[in-house]
Amino acid sequence: MHSGNPADGPLTPGLVFEMMQAHQRTAALKAAIDLDIFSALGDGPGDVASIARHSKASERGIRILCDFLAIYGVIVKENGRYRHTPASVMYLDPRSPACMATVAQFLSTPEIRAPYDHLAEIVRTGRTILEGAGTVEPENPVWVLFAEKMAPMMAPLTGPLGTVVLDGQTGPIRVLDIAAGHGLFGIEIAKQNPQAKVTGLDWAPVLRVALENARKAGVEDRYDMLPGSAFEVDFGDPYDAVLLTNFLHHFDKPTCVGLLKKVRAALKPGGRAATLEFVPNEDRISPPMSAAFSMTMLTTTTGGDAYTLSELTAMYKEAGFGGITAHPIPMSPHTVVMGRA
Amino acid sequence: MHSGNPADGPLTPGLVFEMMQAHQRTAALKAAIDLDIFSALGDGPGDVASIARHSKASERGIRILCDFLAIYGVIVKENGRYRHTPASVMYLDPRSPACMATVAQFLSTPEIRAPYDHLAEIVRTGRTILEGAGTVEPENPVWVLFAEKMAPMMAPLTGPLGTVVLDGQTGPIRVLDIAAGHGLFGIEIAKQNPQAKVTGLDWAPVLRVALENARKAGVEDRYDMLPGSAFEVDFGDPYDAVLLTNFLHHFDKPTCVGLLKKVRAALKPGGRAATLEFVPNEDRISPPMSAAFSMTMLTTTTGGDAYTLSELTAMYKEAGFGGITAHPIPMSPHTVVMGRA
Repeated sequence: MHSGNPADGPLTPGLVFEMMQAHQRTAALKAAIDLDIFSALGDGPGDVASIARHSKASERGIRILCDFLAIYGVIVKENGRYRHTPASVMYLDPRSPACMATVAQFLSTPEIRAPYDHLAEIVRTGRTILEGAGTVEPENPVWVLFAEKMAPMMAPLTGPLGTVVLDGQTGPIRVLDIAAGHGLFGIEIAKQNPQAKVTGLDWAPVLRVALENARKAGVEDRYDMLPGSAFEVDFGDPYDAVLLTNFLHHFDKPTCVGLLKKVRAALKPGGRAATLEFVPNEDRISPPMSAAFSMTMLTTTTGGDAYTLSELTAMYKEAGFGGITAHPIPMSPHTVVMGRA
Repeated sequence: MHSGNPADGPLTPGLVFEMMQAHQRTAALKAAIDLDIFSALGDGPGDVASIARHSKASERGIRILCDFLAIYGVIVKENGRYRHTPASVMYLDPRSPACMATVAQFLSTPEIRAPYDHLAEIVRTGRTILEGAGTVEPENPVWVLFAEKMAPMMAPLTGPLGTVVLDGQTGPIRVLDIAAGHGLFGIEIAKQNPQAKVTGLDWAPVLRVALENARKAGVEDRYDMLPGSAFEVDFGDPYDAVLLTNFLHHFDKPTCVGLLKKVRAALKPGGRAATLEFVPNEDRISPPMSAAFSMTMLTTTTGGDAYTLSELTAMYKEAGFGGITAHPIPMSPHTVVMGRA
């Protein structure tokens, strides 16, 4: 992947061919996860025969799959044996708490994957081929899956986000977590501030996942649930902070501004609204992972986007916020953008 | 892509996420080809509005798609305008004779793509989920498509292969082109040696493509057709050279040896058999493109592989060949391996 504008480098026929075949990598990683190969390597380096036994798979298949993973640097092959990299131990071995295997499950659900089979049509019309509002259609079950499966991607972000949002504030506060999903962001606030009360807002089936996570974190007595649509439910008494994580990118700018106005009206004076987003630079092609997220919004929504900082700032301002600050989260493609009511 | 064994580098969660999303690149390149974006850029740099007009597509879609292509270095974005790279002019602009757009069409046919939706099952069983012998099932129409669409990948290889096979030999010679496909390899021999007579062997519907290419090259009066299976038809009078391009990789070793014996029996003493193959190093994970080709053989055949030079040499020897030499083709992942009867 190039960072920003690449030099006019050698795009050989090989590289074009490689891009045409890139889908193989997605399939190979998913198959390796499904066949439990990253567990097999957790006990130490293995050869084709031992991994095939562990995975109850053919030696031909395992050899070709493991070689493919080694070609792409996911694992290492040495002297005919395959072994973990430090990174595959951490992010792909099921015994690791940071294991991202479930993320692959979410990303391979038909609702997320199928639009790519119709990408030219989506580009023509400028919107998802999914029905209605796409993934943000009311009560879309894909968000239960998101809440269940995407937590490993989000867990490393919760601490930094909590610190930014609390900004040292102690004592009793009320926090609204819009589109709570897995609930991890609001739960983190409750963990960092033992007097914080958190209200999770999401579709009811999604909130069951959040509540379960609140239980596991031991903060369920300070965790309330507000089921429904962020655009429709009454937010209730004013809050010290409102979280909007991974949410604005699903909507067009006027919709975002409308929601931010509603958020601002639900904040105490000086209260904070904090968005967690992929925020590309103004060139919209860097950093690569943040910028590429626009593609996911093109394929699954009618008007969403990965908004730049100037766009998010403009939305906040139009909604009446001041003191807008951006806080990139280290080692991640995410940025917290915060405004004050 | 890593070359050979990568160092234990930083496989951040971002890189795992990127691999899970790699399929987006295949879809984006295909959509850009289908929407004629590389023609649009052929007239000079364009902005979102001008490209959208050319492609009869939405500005939202074009902006996100072109940004995505720029992120991955396929095109360049500067000051809000998109332009060709020298490489995209050559390999993706339809006005270029080296344009590979049709290759994307071949690679996205259901027979080639669909197995990846079942890769874990394929690894378990060790063979394609396609029926029978997979893509090498008799009369499989996929080879007509291959002959029609894959010529741009093969055209740059024909000259070097012809030079290796002819090895300076002039005067009347007879050449058999097994699995002729588009016919370009045999046709090149006929072009390099004006007294060469070439016999193309392939399924009859495929040979129609080869014959049309022979006509275009002006060598059809020295181009004969032998329709049928290489394993079943009588090769006829002895040849000076037999070409086996992109063919052995579809079969297991005993099948390859059996065919090579039949080839040797059809050669004059001292005659050459020449295979064109992706030949990985003995570690089977480098060079990346040659090594990764095993994955395509896993998904589409029952026992094929990207064979190493030691494996190909052993097959040639077992079939009775001597003087075995390897000739990597510069700037390509392919190698010609030649044996003498």
